[in-house]
Amino acid sequence: MTAIAHPYLLFLGDAPDALSAKTADGVARWRPEWCVGQLRLPDCNADLGLPDRTLEEAAALGARTLLIGVANRGGRIAAAWQDTMLRALDLGFDLAAGLHQRLADLPAVKARADERGRAIHDVRHPSRGFDIGTGARRTGKRLLTVGTDCSVGKMYTALALEREMRARGLNADFRATGQTGILIAGDGVSVDAVVSDFVAGAVEWLTPENDPDHWDVVEGQASVLHPSYAGVTLGLVHGSQPDAMVLCHEPTRRHMRGLPHRPVPGIEETIAAHVAAARVTNPDARVIGLSINTAGLTAAEADCVLRDTADAFGLPTVDPLRTGAGPLVDALQDL
Amino acid sequence: MTAIAHPYLLFLGDAPDALSAKTADGVARWRPEWCVGQLRLPDCNADLGLPDRTLEEAAALGARTLLIGVANRGGRIAAAWQDTMLRALDLGFDLAAGLHQRLADLPAVKARADERGRAIHDVRHPSRGFDIGTGARRTGKRLLTVGTDCSVGKMYTALALEREMRARGLNADFRATGQTGILIAGDGVSVDAVVSDFVAGAVEWLTPENDPDHWDVVEGQASVLHPSYAGVTLGLVHGSQPDAMVLCHEPTRRHMRGLPHRPVPGIEETIAAHVAAARVTNPDARVIGLSINTAGLTAAEADCVLRDTADAFGLPTVDPLRTGAGPLVDALQDL
Repeated sequence: MTAIAHPYLLFLGDAPDALSAKTADGVARWRPEWCVGQLRLPDCNADLGLPDRTLEEAAALGARTLLIGVANRGGRIAAAWQDTMLRALDLGFDLAAGLHQRLADLPAVKARADERGRAIHDVRHPSRGFDIGTGARRTGKRLLTVGTDCSVGKMYTALALEREMRARGLNADFRATGQTGILIAGDGVSVDAVVSDFVAGAVEWLTPENDPDHWDVVEGQASVLHPSYAGVTLGLVHGSQPDAMVLCHEPTRRHMRGLPHRPVPGIEETIAAHVAAARVTNPDARVIGLSINTAGLTAAEADCVLRDTADAFGLPTVDPLRTGAGPLVDALQDL
Repeated sequence: MTAIAHPYLLFLGDAPDALSAKTADGVARWRPEWCVGQLRLPDCNADLGLPDRTLEEAAALGARTLLIGVANRGGRIAAAWQDTMLRALDLGFDLAAGLHQRLADLPAVKARADERGRAIHDVRHPSRGFDIGTGARRTGKRLLTVGTDCSVGKMYTALALEREMRARGLNADFRATGQTGILIAGDGVSVDAVVSDFVAGAVEWLTPENDPDHWDVVEGQASVLHPSYAGVTLGLVHGSQPDAMVLCHEPTRRHMRGLPHRPVPGIEETIAAHVAAARVTNPDARVIGLSINTAGLTAAEADCVLRDTADAFGLPTVDPLRTGAGPLVDALQDL
C-alpha cells in the first residue's frame, strides 16, 4: 500500500462510547505528534482529550488525512459520517479507515475522491498482490510479538519496543500487521485479510532485507494455538523469521477470545509452540522476554505477577504501559 | 459452492503434453463413471485414453458439464478455447475449471452463460463466505492426509481411502480442498484461496457434524513445516480436527517443492509436528499409517522402501496406486 499521509485529524463520528473509538485512541496514544486534533459529531460520547477541530481548522494546521477512528458494530460505515468525509475530500484531505466495509465502496465518496484526486486507504484490505513466501534468510534482524491469545498486547508491546529502541539510538521500525497498527505506522499489511497462500510471502515483503543492525519490530497476531486463527499466526511467524520473540499474556483472561469453553494455554506451552514454529525459518529463534498486560490488576498485584513470572521463566518480564519495555531491550542488546 | 453437475466431457484443448492435462487425468482416473469422453483440439498432444467426443455427441450421451481439464502456464485461459466454451453453453453444458484466471471474467463467456442460464464453476475461487472457525468438537469422524511436502500424494491417498472404505461398506466421503479434488468430488473448497482468517472456518463448514460412524476423508495440502504454505496447512489441520491422519511422503524428492535449497523434513519430525498441531482441536489425533509415493522407484525398490518404512515406524505403510489402501483402512477399523 501507499503510505498514509500525516498529520491526521481523528474522526470519532457518533461513537456511543470510548471503546468504539479505540482505533483513534491507539493512534493518539502512539503517534500524538501526528494528530492535530479530534472531530466529533454532536452525539459523540468518546473523547481522546485532544483539541476539537473543525475540518477547516485541521486543514489550516496542516492535517492531510481524515482518519476514521471509530468502529460501529460489524465494521459498517454510518450514513451520518458521509457528509464529513465528502467535505474533507473537498478540503484536500485523504481518507483512511480500518473498517470491514470499504470507504471506496461508497459511490459518492469514491466519486468525490476521484474528482478531487485524493487517496482512500481502506487498510483492512490488502491493496496489492504478494508473492509466495520462500523462507530464505534475509539480512537484518526481526523481533515478533507472539501471545497466549488474541488481544493481549502484541501491538502495544511492539510499539513500546520500537519507542524504547529508538530512544536508545537503535535502528528499529515497527511493522504493522493489523488495521490499527497500520494507521499508527502509516503503512503495513493486514495479514488476516490476505489470501492464505500468500500470508508468509506478504510478511516477507513487509520485513525485507535490511542493514545488519536494523530491527523490524513486527506486530504479532493471535496465537499458533488459537483454533480460529492459528494459520494466520503461523504464516506470520514463518514469514517474519524472527531472531527474537516477546510473548504477551493477559493473566486475568478466563478463556480464549471468542471461545468461552476454551482455557487460555499456559505461557510455557505457548513459548514451546512458537519457538518450534519459528525455527522452521530461523533456527536461532528464541523468546527473549515476556510482556504481561496487567491493566486488570492493582499496582501491587501487577508487581507481584511481574516478579513471579520473571522468576518462573527466567526471562525479563514487563508491562510496557506500567514499567516500560527497557528490560526487553536490554535482553535484545545482549543477544 | 453449488455442486458441479455430471457427467463431464473433459476438454483437453491444445494441451502441449500429458502433464498439461493432469487435472483431466485425475478426474478420469478417480471418476471414470462421470466421464463420457474427451474433447481435443487439432494440435492437442495429451490423450487420456477416453473416447473422443464432439460436444454434440457428449450432449447426446447426457454430459452436463464441460470440464476445462488443461492448464496453461500461469493458469491462463487460451483464446483458442473460447469458441468451444461458447458452443458448449449453447448446447446446455455448464462450465467448470480450476484455473487461476476465472472463466466468469471472460465477458463473452459470462454473457453467454447468463443468456443460456448455465452455471460457471471457477473452483479455485471460493464462491461463498465462511465464518471464523471455533474448534468446537463435532460428531462424526475425520481423517486428514498430511505430508512431508506439497505434491506427495495427499489427494490420491484420500481418494484411495474413500474408495477402499466404500468397498467395505463404510460410510465415507472424500472432502476436496484443492481444485483438482473439487472437480473429482463435484464440490469442496480450495482452501489456499480462502482469506487467511477464515481457513479453519471453511474447513469446519466442509466437514460438518455427521453420523457417529461417518468418516470425512479430507484432502490435505502442503505441510505445517513448509515455509511457504504452512499457514494454509495449519488452518486445515485445526478445522478438520482429525481423529486420524495418514502421512504422505515421496522418497525421491530432493528438496521441498519450490525451495531448491531446503531439504524435505523427515517422516518422524513431520509426524510430530502434525500430531502436535492436530491435538489443539482433537486431543486424540494420531497418525495411523503412511502412504509412500513410489512412482519414481522400480517394483523391487518400492517393496523394499514400503517394508523398511513400515518397520521403522511400526505403522501400516502403502503406496495406494501400487498396493491399495487396504492396510490403512484396517488400521482405521481397529481404532
